[in-house]
Amino acid sequence: MPDLVTIPARRGKAAFVAAGQTVRIVNTHGAQVVDTWAFSRHDLSEFMSMEHSRTAMLRLRPRIGDALVTNHRRPILTLTEDTAGGVHDTLIAACDSYRYEGLGCTEYHDNCTDNLAVALAELGLTPPETPSPLNLFMNIPWTVDGAVSFDPPVSTPGSHVALHAEMDVVIAFSACPQDILPINGTARRPTEAHFAILEATA
Amino acid sequence: MPDLVTIPARRGKAAFVAAGQTVRIVNTHGAQVVDTWAFSRHDLSEFMSMEHSRTAMLRLRPRIGDALVTNHRRPILTLTEDTAGGVHDTLIAACDSYRYEGLGCTEYHDNCTDNLAVALAELGLTPPETPSPLNLFMNIPWTVDGAVSFDPPVSTPGSHVALHAEMDVVIAFSACPQDILPINGTARRPTEAHFAILEATA
Repeated sequence: MPDLVTIPARRGKAAFVAAGQTVRIVNTHGAQVVDTWAFSRHDLSEFMSMEHSRTAMLRLRPRIGDALVTNHRRPILTLTEDTAGGVHDTLIAACDSYRYEGLGCTEYHDNCTDNLAVALAELGLTPPETPSPLNLFMNIPWTVDGAVSFDPPVSTPGSHVALHAEMDVVIAFSACPQDILPINGTARRPTEAHFAILEATA
Repeated sequence: MPDLVTIPARRGKAAFVAAGQTVRIVNTHGAQVVDTWAFSRHDLSEFMSMEHSRTAMLRLRPRIGDALVTNHRRPILTLTEDTAGGVHDTLIAACDSYRYEGLGCTEYHDNCTDNLAVALAELGLTPPETPSPLNLFMNIPWTVDGAVSFDPPVSTPGSHVALHAEMDVVIAFSACPQDILPINGTARRPTEAHFAILEATA
């Protein structure tokens, strides 16, 4: 079994993933949203883009076999496994200090935007901007009329997705610290999650 | 009547708009998508963000009375009039050279991303990035299942929207040069559009 890496509760974690490797992201406790970003390892200004991916996939969220693409419209990650019910989000921005101020926080609140920056800094890197993330396990249903809502995840403990790297990437995750809305479950208690990097198979 | 400014076919145009003024964008010939961006005039790194706006509006596209917000989650433009059927898009990236390469073009094709840069350059400004635009008059229907498609506009000649500036902004438009897909009408013939800046009323 490959090593499991911890994405600590309320924190970020980044890693290098080579083309051909697959990253398996495990929703260890079942109700944790994991904001996910990917940047070209050789040019951080090329990165996974939700607005370009929706255009390429012609879908609001990826299904197994769909490739997420970069802002240069090249495939970067392909969703190859999903035991989490297929419910992920491409529509909603990463949370940030402004979000928590708007929700009434008067002191600093952990947030996914800062977690991305810290996770990349641990690798000696700086994100060129905060791309809109692929929000794994995040449940943002929409209606025919265009309304969206923030609902608890439908994923279960130990459920996972796998993302196949189509190029050499820096991948970054944030175990979303949202504890005011029920997006990380009705308990409003963010938890750790885990990932593993699987070698390319022949 | 205020002066009408032309957004030339396949080109961009930017302008300064003061807080309290309203911009009326006219779909002069009826089937032209107008990609729209807004930046804080005093800090271009704060700009209208579709992923933050969907979060604030809890909608996939704005309705009359909805405020689009910045990446700092502050209201920047409010939709105050819409005679174009309410069909606009927040989901799809601005077209770019990569898009047209992917559609088979072997020579340079005008594109909204470059149009944004040129339009701001005419004001002596440089966009910090290419935010995902508010695509006025663009018809991207979605299904309950999450499929999206690129359909011709439902707007009519002379129909318009009005956007009220909530702060001093630099607004930029691109009359989308897409002539391969029918997003600018089944004739696939991009046209000019127009806008006017209306003074604040007491």
